[in-house]
Amino acid sequence: MTKVLKLDEIKRLIDSRRLIREIETGFVLYSEGRVVVPPVGFLHFEQPPGDVHIKYGFVTDDHFYVLKMASGFYENPALDLPVSDGLLLLFSQKTGHLELILLDECWLTDMRTAAAGAVAAKHLAASAVHRIGIVGTGVQARMQLEMLRDVVDCQRCLIWGRDADKARRMVADLREREVIQSWGLDLEVATDLDELVGQCNVIVTTTSAREPLIRADQVQPGTHITAMGSDDHGKQELEAGVLAKADRVIADSVSQCVDHGECFHAVQGNHIEEGFILELGNVIKDPGVGRTSDDQITVADLTGVAIQDIQIAKMVEHAARLAEQA
Amino acid sequence: MTKVLKLDEIKRLIDSRRLIREIETGFVLYSEGRVVVPPVGFLHFEQPPGDVHIKYGFVTDDHFYVLKMASGFYENPALDLPVSDGLLLLFSQKTGHLELILLDECWLTDMRTAAAGAVAAKHLAASAVHRIGIVGTGVQARMQLEMLRDVVDCQRCLIWGRDADKARRMVADLREREVIQSWGLDLEVATDLDELVGQCNVIVTTTSAREPLIRADQVQPGTHITAMGSDDHGKQELEAGVLAKADRVIADSVSQCVDHGECFHAVQGNHIEEGFILELGNVIKDPGVGRTSDDQITVADLTGVAIQDIQIAKMVEHAARLAEQA
Repeated sequence: MTKVLKLDEIKRLIDSRRLIREIETGFVLYSEGRVVVPPVGFLHFEQPPGDVHIKYGFVTDDHFYVLKMASGFYENPALDLPVSDGLLLLFSQKTGHLELILLDECWLTDMRTAAAGAVAAKHLAASAVHRIGIVGTGVQARMQLEMLRDVVDCQRCLIWGRDADKARRMVADLREREVIQSWGLDLEVATDLDELVGQCNVIVTTTSAREPLIRADQVQPGTHITAMGSDDHGKQELEAGVLAKADRVIADSVSQCVDHGECFHAVQGNHIEEGFILELGNVIKDPGVGRTSDDQITVADLTGVAIQDIQIAKMVEHAARLAEQA
Repeated sequence: MTKVLKLDEIKRLIDSRRLIREIETGFVLYSEGRVVVPPVGFLHFEQPPGDVHIKYGFVTDDHFYVLKMASGFYENPALDLPVSDGLLLLFSQKTGHLELILLDECWLTDMRTAAAGAVAAKHLAASAVHRIGIVGTGVQARMQLEMLRDVVDCQRCLIWGRDADKARRMVADLREREVIQSWGLDLEVATDLDELVGQCNVIVTTTSAREPLIRADQVQPGTHITAMGSDDHGKQELEAGVLAKADRVIADSVSQCVDHGECFHAVQGNHIEEGFILELGNVIKDPGVGRTSDDQITVADLTGVAIQDIQIAKMVEHAARLAEQA
């Protein structure tokens, strides 16, 4: 019998440290070529504007295959509705049977995206992180920061957004959060990007920018930047020179990032060659190819891969099964 | 809140006459270019062998968009499980919200396929149908026959299958069915295809044949043939000469049938030109382009189009809403 789990049930089943490990494992499987991920399906709507992404795939010789739908309808807030909706479906690879429906309303997509940021910082940040910088003020900016708690030993954070009011509100909101309070994180709004990029050695960009925000001349030795925002053609958060200045550029999927991530702009403009880009799964598997000294600059370009959806779906299924047996 | 309907609930909501009308409407919308249907998504498994089809799309300016998953895992019968599983999802085109999940286990796919056969016979058969011929002995063969009751005034039927035992069992099963008994249908097993094709003037082929079963020289004036089985490359039920001999060849989707239906073989072998093929929606809209006399030969090539899934999903949603209000 097909089981259905709703968002509140799903939230109780996710442990962020376990999730980070599962996403790590997923990136390794992906870079080893053990994941089947056909091209993403799309639907586009004009009135009102909306996009739907359909991702599906599986790890070979595994139990499940997974399909995810995730939509963004950008005028929903005027109707007092969330922008995103979606679900995840788990089917048996052995019988085709639909085993589990996760009505996650896109929350698992946000979580697996935040976990990918944590995986990148865990493997690429310098040994001592003195300050975290978050560029962006949306839901994903907050989740990225909270997930870093599990991988970075640091108690200071600067936040900057293109809208200063939103940045102030984000800091005020975060100070109320139990996870931030128990972390003991000191949070401030940055005056400008010069201040943020100059003072932080782990920086996460999570905006919808279509023009570069961070310049190469701002980036100091020892910095690690995770760029999350550029998930489609036309988006860009980092000047291509940032990637040229970096000692290591790491993509969640080289082919996908060269198609539409920060790497796209850097390769198109001949700032770097495609062969210079490493894949995250290979860096996790063999840390020697990643950062080798604390003064290197590293850039992780994360565009999102269906293996993340597969891994988080399987993790929820496993936790639900254990909870049921208990 | 997302609603979930299971197969037994879904079965109570389908009225076959209403379904035939909705599928008719869908074919017209499709041929008018008012349906968005991106390419089908596929997943293939090897151990054990299984295929998954992911179809999605929408009628423009409508309320819903629809996604369907349907799988076939061919070794399931050894595990005492059905070959097929799947579901249909209805989302709002206005907000992206997931409104309804239909856990139909592939039954709605079978029903919309049978309804398409009925639509073809309704619009293309000669005015008097003296005998129905069914070629094939599977689930779809039975459903095709039962659905014809609503559109064809005829009380005699011949059945033929490559496995004579299966044909005899099918006739025995059907004689027990209430729908057949109340119809008063006289059912016989045909000795061979010469007998069936010679005596029947509405013929439905619904086999997985990879070599032609029906020859051009067998087909009599006044016959209508609906070929259902050729839904993928490599399949063929009719000698290409049957299409060349026909006065009218009608496809559910011209582009799709030229790619992999009976039309594929006929066009590839230069038996007919692509321009000779009519589209079913255009024949429904303008009957004058279809059969114009009782002695013409017509062939409908049906490969299955996502508009059928969209229409049946919307019909179930509508019936469920009415039932809830009552």
